[in-house]
Amino acid sequence: MAQGAAKKVLILGGDGYLGWPTAMHLAKLGYKVAAVDNYFRRWACHQLNVEPLVDVPNMQIRAELYESITDQTIHIAVGDITNYEFLRKVFEGRIFGEQWGEGPPDAVVHYAEQPSAPYSMIDQEKAAFTLTNNLVGTANLVHAVKEYEPACHIVKLGTMGVYGTPNIDIEEGYLDVEHKGRKHTFLFPKCPGSLYHLTKAQDADLLYFYVRIWDIRVTDLNQGPVYGIETEEALHEERLLTIFNYDDVFGTVFNRFLAQAAAGFPLTVYGKGEQIRGYINIKDTLACVELSVRNPADRGQYRVFNQFVETFTVNELAEKVVQAGKNLDIDVEIKSIPNPRREAEEHYYNPTHTGLLELGLEPHYLTEEVATGMLSFVMNYKGKIQQGCILPKISWT
Amino acid sequence: MAQGAAKKVLILGGDGYLGWPTAMHLAKLGYKVAAVDNYFRRWACHQLNVEPLVDVPNMQIRAELYESITDQTIHIAVGDITNYEFLRKVFEGRIFGEQWGEGPPDAVVHYAEQPSAPYSMIDQEKAAFTLTNNLVGTANLVHAVKEYEPACHIVKLGTMGVYGTPNIDIEEGYLDVEHKGRKHTFLFPKCPGSLYHLTKAQDADLLYFYVRIWDIRVTDLNQGPVYGIETEEALHEERLLTIFNYDDVFGTVFNRFLAQAAAGFPLTVYGKGEQIRGYINIKDTLACVELSVRNPADRGQYRVFNQFVETFTVNELAEKVVQAGKNLDIDVEIKSIPNPRREAEEHYYNPTHTGLLELGLEPHYLTEEVATGMLSFVMNYKGKIQQGCILPKISWT
Repeated sequence: MAQGAAKKVLILGGDGYLGWPTAMHLAKLGYKVAAVDNYFRRWACHQLNVEPLVDVPNMQIRAELYESITDQTIHIAVGDITNYEFLRKVFEGRIFGEQWGEGPPDAVVHYAEQPSAPYSMIDQEKAAFTLTNNLVGTANLVHAVKEYEPACHIVKLGTMGVYGTPNIDIEEGYLDVEHKGRKHTFLFPKCPGSLYHLTKAQDADLLYFYVRIWDIRVTDLNQGPVYGIETEEALHEERLLTIFNYDDVFGTVFNRFLAQAAAGFPLTVYGKGEQIRGYINIKDTLACVELSVRNPADRGQYRVFNQFVETFTVNELAEKVVQAGKNLDIDVEIKSIPNPRREAEEHYYNPTHTGLLELGLEPHYLTEEVATGMLSFVMNYKGKIQQGCILPKISWT
Repeated sequence: MAQGAAKKVLILGGDGYLGWPTAMHLAKLGYKVAAVDNYFRRWACHQLNVEPLVDVPNMQIRAELYESITDQTIHIAVGDITNYEFLRKVFEGRIFGEQWGEGPPDAVVHYAEQPSAPYSMIDQEKAAFTLTNNLVGTANLVHAVKEYEPACHIVKLGTMGVYGTPNIDIEEGYLDVEHKGRKHTFLFPKCPGSLYHLTKAQDADLLYFYVRIWDIRVTDLNQGPVYGIETEEALHEERLLTIFNYDDVFGTVFNRFLAQAAAGFPLTVYGKGEQIRGYINIKDTLACVELSVRNPADRGQYRVFNQFVETFTVNELAEKVVQAGKNLDIDVEIKSIPNPRREAEEHYYNPTHTGLLELGLEPHYLTEEVATGMLSFVMNYKGKIQQGCILPKISWT
């Protein structure tokens, strides 16, 4: 990793499901890594009583542990990027100490958004929090980049959910439109299905705006639902694992099904279960982020990748967990429940996703073996699964 | 006004350039009117030292004065709609006293957004304020409507600036796209030119989202730059006039030109001056808002009108002021200055605007007589024009 050795990467949301594994992954590859988090996710999990499957120490303790095992440093700061004075200290660098050094990062991986659709739909307070956290945080990041290093590459985690389920192919970022004999290229129009997803469409528009006005460089990774828990850098050390939620607020659908199967509950399919989404293994998330950091967008470029590997219906995902159960002699049932969301349950879905493959992504697929391995892993924590987290409690309406 | 007599209309941003004249106009037509404002605009004018042309008393005093002359009541509350508890009190109605009565309004005219593009581009603090004020305010409004009266009609002032200047015709709200042999109708894609305009695209997306999820009813009025100061209900009473800004922060371009001409300064045309926009007389703004209130959107409908009457280039506007000057024996020069904004200075522009005409709008046009009358009016305040407000001080980059 020639260029990686010198490259300083700042990870915002470094304590989260994707943030922490990304921090370890980039550190292992030779990047200088700093991770920042405000511990919102941990707080919200306590607040809603939806604790993760595995107890993992806080980010400071995990960084110390990781360094003691690998001799790789992950620099840590705890704070909130909606506080611009805190973010300025982060960009000035002194907050991380001498080894990180003064001066701004070369790239920022921005995971520091409130990441849950159901959370954003609970009430007015959580809606206002989601808007403020996600949009002011992103606007502050853009202002810090302009103030300290306009060449700094922002890699923002977006979501495939911003597109909704239009009746045409979803292109990778842009759409060429011919209308009444004239042509124009638009950012692909969005139609998100939750307030959280809306804020990700809004932060995309915000970044695209500042790219046009200030010639900054941005990669937006519109990611499908992620599944998985173990990544190579966790080193079979439980305390280095990522935060794994299996509840209806912070858990993604496949992870939720695994926990339901392990706990002996039916898999709760929302409505008809014919909702199609594009899925990705957490290991591929790390690879996609690293590929983006290694191959930055140009100045004045707002680059979009649709970050997923395979599409499945929810029913297909459930069947995979049933089969994994069979392989482990676990009887898994599927149960359709009224859909707490308001979404199309049958729809066209054909999103393009070639950009990251062209950069060199070697995808992991959700094979029977992979699903069985994951269920087997989750079975180790069977006794820890909170029964109150099994059924959805948050309705869209 | 049969239905108007019983109809309760809440005006958010009721102290502003459009809010106050709208309050008087709807009161005169027989609506029950309540106006809410947090006095942000007055505060920001002090902060930036860009005072309006005419000193007008605060909203409470103007409402008392208006009632003493007309016997029409405009109910007043001073507070901030980003504070949800305050907004709940407004929807509960008791805050306005007995005559307004308890219970929510039938319609809300939402002007309570930070309305200045240059203000939003000053620095990080003002960017964060604009995002929070405009988006949390709008989200709170939606939550209050859901909580108290889901049938309440939200009439939100948008801006034509959300569209930018695409190379195709701008339709009224929606765009039918044919792509690879399939079809889909999208909300017309936005490409705004300032952070302020971005927040208006974002609040449009936010309202469209909640229309889909909660079946509320919304009319979005994408308005072009407004010109003018006098409206019928100001009754030739100076203290009932609207707040008229002529500076580069809160003044719209034609109003700015009038003040520059009156003060003996050259009209400052930004760049080439071939930027085309759709303009509207403030009298027509009031008519459009009333037409929208009188003919509400359906439940589950997000209705968009492009609210302007005529398109002009900036150079054409400047020529109108030169001609008005000639009619009043005032010598008016035009001076191109470097464009403080980042925008296309030559572009295609052909927006549709038939919806409000179909509802019955009888437009006022920017004739030589109208322009001359306005310049003559502004000349009365010639001695009050602050010279420091004449040249733009805020750059986009």
